[in-house]
Amino acid sequence: MIIDCDPGHDDALALLLAVGDPRLRLLGVTTVAGNQTLDKTTRNALRILALAGVTDVPVAAGCDRPLVGDLVVAENIHGASGLDGPDLDGPTGTTVDVHAVELMRRLIVASDEPVTLIATGPLTNVALLLRLHPEVLPRVGRVVFMGGSTGRGNTTPYGEFNIVTDPEAAGIVLNSGRPTTMIGLNVTHQALATAEIIDGFRALGTRLGTVCAELMTFFASTYRREFGFDHPPVHDPIAVAAVIDPALVETVAAPVAVELTGTLTRGATVVDLHHRTREAPNADVAVGLQVDAFWKLLMTAVRNLG
Amino acid sequence: MIIDCDPGHDDALALLLAVGDPRLRLLGVTTVAGNQTLDKTTRNALRILALAGVTDVPVAAGCDRPLVGDLVVAENIHGASGLDGPDLDGPTGTTVDVHAVELMRRLIVASDEPVTLIATGPLTNVALLLRLHPEVLPRVGRVVFMGGSTGRGNTTPYGEFNIVTDPEAAGIVLNSGRPTTMIGLNVTHQALATAEIIDGFRALGTRLGTVCAELMTFFASTYRREFGFDHPPVHDPIAVAAVIDPALVETVAAPVAVELTGTLTRGATVVDLHHRTREAPNADVAVGLQVDAFWKLLMTAVRNLG
Amino acid sequence: MIIDCDPGHDDALALLLAVGDPRLRLLGVTTVAGNQTLDKTTRNALRILALAGVTDVPVAAGCDRPLVGDLVVAENIHGASGLDGPDLDGPTGTTVDVHAVELMRRLIVASDEPVTLIATGPLTNVALLLRLHPEVLPRVGRVVFMGGSTGRGNTTPYGEFNIVTDPEAAGIVLNSGRPTTMIGLNVTHQALATAEIIDGFRALGTRLGTVCAELMTFFASTYRREFGFDHPPVHDPIAVAAVIDPALVETVAAPVAVELTGTLTRGATVVDLHHRTREAPNADVAVGLQVDAFWKLLMTAVRNLG
Amino acid sequence: MIIDCDPGHDDALALLLAVGDPRLRLLGVTTVAGNQTLDKTTRNALRILALAGVTDVPVAAGCDRPLVGDLVVAENIHGASGLDGPDLDGPTGTTVDVHAVELMRRLIVASDEPVTLIATGPLTNVALLLRLHPEVLPRVGRVVFMGGSTGRGNTTPYGEFNIVTDPEAAGIVLNSGRPTTMIGLNVTHQALATAEIIDGFRALGTRLGTVCAELMTFFASTYRREFGFDHPPVHDPIAVAAVIDPALVETVAAPVAVELTGTLTRGATVVDLHHRTREAPNADVAVGLQVDAFWKLLMTAVRNLG
Repeated sequence: MIIDCDPGHDDALALLLAVGDPRLRLLGVTTVAGNQTLDKTTRNALRILALAGVTDVPVAAGCDRPLVGDLVVAENIHGASGLDGPDLDGPTGTTVDVHAVELMRRLIVASDEPVTLIATGPLTNVALLLRLHPEVLPRVGRVVFMGGSTGRGNTTPYGEFNIVTDPEAAGIVLNSGRPTTMIGLNVTHQALATAEIIDGFRALGTRLGTVCAELMTFFASTYRREFGFDHPPVHDPIAVAAVIDPALVETVAAPVAVELTGTLTRGATVVDLHHRTREAPNADVAVGLQVDAFWKLLMTAVRNLG
Repeated sequence: MIIDCDPGHDDALALLLAVGDPRLRLLGVTTVAGNQTLDKTTRNALRILALAGVTDVPVAAGCDRPLVGDLVVAENIHGASGLDGPDLDGPTGTTVDVHAVELMRRLIVASDEPVTLIATGPLTNVALLLRLHPEVLPRVGRVVFMGGSTGRGNTTPYGEFNIVTDPEAAGIVLNSGRPTTMIGLNVTHQALATAEIIDGFRALGTRLGTVCAELMTFFASTYRREFGFDHPPVHDPIAVAAVIDPALVETVAAPVAVELTGTLTRGATVVDLHHRTREAPNADVAVGLQVDAFWKLLMTAVRNLG
Repeated sequence: MIIDCDPGHDDALALLLAVGDPRLRLLGVTTVAGNQTLDKTTRNALRILALAGVTDVPVAAGCDRPLVGDLVVAENIHGASGLDGPDLDGPTGTTVDVHAVELMRRLIVASDEPVTLIATGPLTNVALLLRLHPEVLPRVGRVVFMGGSTGRGNTTPYGEFNIVTDPEAAGIVLNSGRPTTMIGLNVTHQALATAEIIDGFRALGTRLGTVCAELMTFFASTYRREFGFDHPPVHDPIAVAAVIDPALVETVAAPVAVELTGTLTRGATVVDLHHRTREAPNADVAVGLQVDAFWKLLMTAVRNLG
Repeated sequence: MIIDCDPGHDDALALLLAVGDPRLRLLGVTTVAGNQTLDKTTRNALRILALAGVTDVPVAAGCDRPLVGDLVVAENIHGASGLDGPDLDGPTGTTVDVHAVELMRRLIVASDEPVTLIATGPLTNVALLLRLHPEVLPRVGRVVFMGGSTGRGNTTPYGEFNIVTDPEAAGIVLNSGRPTTMIGLNVTHQALATAEIIDGFRALGTRLGTVCAELMTFFASTYRREFGFDHPPVHDPIAVAAVIDPALVETVAAPVAVELTGTLTRGATVVDLHHRTREAPNADVAVGLQVDAFWKLLMTAVRNLG
């Protein structure tokens, strides 16, 4: 499994879940501009891995902007560093000296078995991999991405941040022909980091637990200010959880397309749950979540990391 | 109050509610192409009024196609006549010899008090009234339309039939500056004509009750075939009910815009329930319905008509 | 013949040509918002007719804004009054008390022979006539409009002012099925009001000649400032000239569509001169102009008016 | 200098000009899907280089489809092989074992001086280079591409084949911030391969001269059939000629953007020659060509190759 991410508070938890759960084998981590600039998301990925004591997973930086549109980072949500809240140490490791797309290619080619790509940021890197190296496509077992929604958005009325940031990339990934799972806002908004959840992280009594609690506390403050939410939704780790234990996430196969041209709806994921388009399904769309089991999975992974 | 409609099974019930409830004063009925061609929707409006024994309400035919796009009727839902199911007599009355837009203008100008426009079809006529005769705008108390949705569509994934049929007209109406209420699929899909409801109509023991039951039975058959629904949603009379008793429909003030340019989303009503656009609200958007009270209101009106 | 216009300097010349040439019979003048607000274009039409001594042609005001988009007047070109330059008297006549669309309908219905509609402003009124009263369409002999271009624009790189102002209206007119002539920038930019032309008007020695010279002098100043032109193109009277003497304007039958959705090209007239779309021709597109003969025609008409 | 191409008859002449003129140093050739599929354009590039006796220039295959849209090849113009007409031998050389984008990156990094990129096909490869490796951008001296137009198109009314094939890629290249020259249809349609030109190639008395004559003869036949042209325009070598001798091509600095969303105009290059957008120029747009000098340059290069 490879994680392509833009940490980001919830990306950080996704990384921790990926390295803390014994059932996953993380081949590499790649970074992309999104929640913050590429420099910051890359540094954040390295910091989180250092914090988790992970030293053997290669990290590569990828695209510093979307394919077509301009980059608009989510500093209002994730702060100036992209990971505001806890007082984190600097990274101990460094990135490898190839582009994220090339690292993904090499890891896929070198793997004995199909590789799952988990994307928790804009899909720029994944889309470029598919366009540049279509020859590796058969070795990609599945793409699981956090992004989109069956209904409401968070960046525009119908558009979710990751997809709105790079709609063309999302369209490329959804049209790849490989099995794809979409984890959208419609389910991630069920995974709310309540005070009880935050207390649970803190009660682990570990440095990591405290960091997780502090990340969620900061995240709660920005979600309250920006969205008026009582508790922030923790989007990204659900994509990892869906790979660890598919039973946690209920999905339906449906046609999903990305609106590229709408004045008001650019970047909306047009999910055809009611068979209005007569298109064939191209994605397994998450529609339900075992919320308690998800939190237990995440909490256990953080505890495992000590 | 004026009703602009394209009957249509649920438009027929909307008309019956409008003439059967003692609290409303129906000044006129105008027709538009939509569920069927203008000739058929006009004939159907006349047939329903004849059936209800209404002879003193002027009826005028309006636009035979949308402002910009092509007309695509919903014959798969409403049948070849637009009102398939019961064996209805022909109309007894005729239309007045002016265009629907002109009849609306005259009725509004002649009225002592502000007039409510209820639209249950594509908004072509209403939009043209606003463009041609902006001088009557201050005398329009409110526009209440059935159309759009806060989420799912029925014609495209996010597009509802009335709005998809004439998105430009809907945009004109929503930008009119007058109080506007949107009754979308998100609430109308709660008003399902179950077997119990249909039996209730039949149990009235009147000709009208039987016709209503037969209309709903036909409607149920096409909704089952086209959408896989167990019971058909009865959209249009909710717009009338919301005028009779506003307490029946819960609304929130929100910005609503119509997507005019999207390849996949043209005609979607972009309802900004979560303050993503920073626009000022321009519509009261229905988000809840007192389902039982609605059916009681409708049933009572049909009974009143004998 | 009916002229629908938004005077405007070149519209003023178009009106003078229409009333000064003995071969035309002007049934009515209707006005529309465009170069300036409706109030101003209507007043200007009345002032020009008074100046020309015309008292028996009904004038009606029409739409005060485009169908869908917002009105952006061309004050930078036509000045605060819409007809800056000469010191004109106020109007002597008044408008009739019906909407422009209704006046057009009545004149067409009352005419013994097919009526030519000449439009020199945005096509809002003409489009609404076609949508509201499709029954008069067979009695419209031809629509001749000044607008669009086979290439360059004047408002956006490919968009001309009249069409950019109301692209949906232009699309409706071009799809009407009636014979249509498009007089675009590609020919109107050949009719430049040089110093020699302006001198010619002045040399007529009449009040009208002086007014024409002053109008063109003002027009020259704004075109120089806004476009860097040595001499201003006199667009609108060419549409009238093409009706008086079709031999003045070379046309080719071609498919013409209006781009409604482009981010950069909304309002461009997409003229398929090279058969790329396989569509059937729907307009006679002007591609050449007898420049000298045109000026002679215009000059003679102004002289005729004394 | 690197050439990125999709041969293609006129691409073949562009390659011959690049290797036959002593003033250019061709570092590499990369191929892209466009006029034909990637397999065919790559094979054709290798065949042309073999024919010209060039063995020391690396060739790499690039993208097999556009970034976002679907590939639609120009088989009607270039035939089933992409280079129909002459009876060409198979290639003698092979491609290097890296992607075109990676070859470009390596050649640019290895070069002592800024590298000029000449693109004669869709801009997919060049765009991906800019997105994946923005760090090499300062070492790209200029991008010269054949594509677009200041007015008419050849694939749609306003769209030229290379840009229509991959509009997003063209947009990326035009927004790169590096000096860019656009060689559009407005000038390439001046370089017509008349019978005299074709005779000139044949009169060289060489194998290459004969092949050029046969290529142009086939090209003439398809242009006659598809466009009704008497003689085919030879687009691509003008981009090479503009690098060899900039005096051959007159340019003006202008803002150029690519329409990505228009229903009728997607892929049109919106060239703002008349300062309508107030944007800063981002390209040197060819507006004139020394036709005779161009043909002499090309003829001489082919003669040089023996």
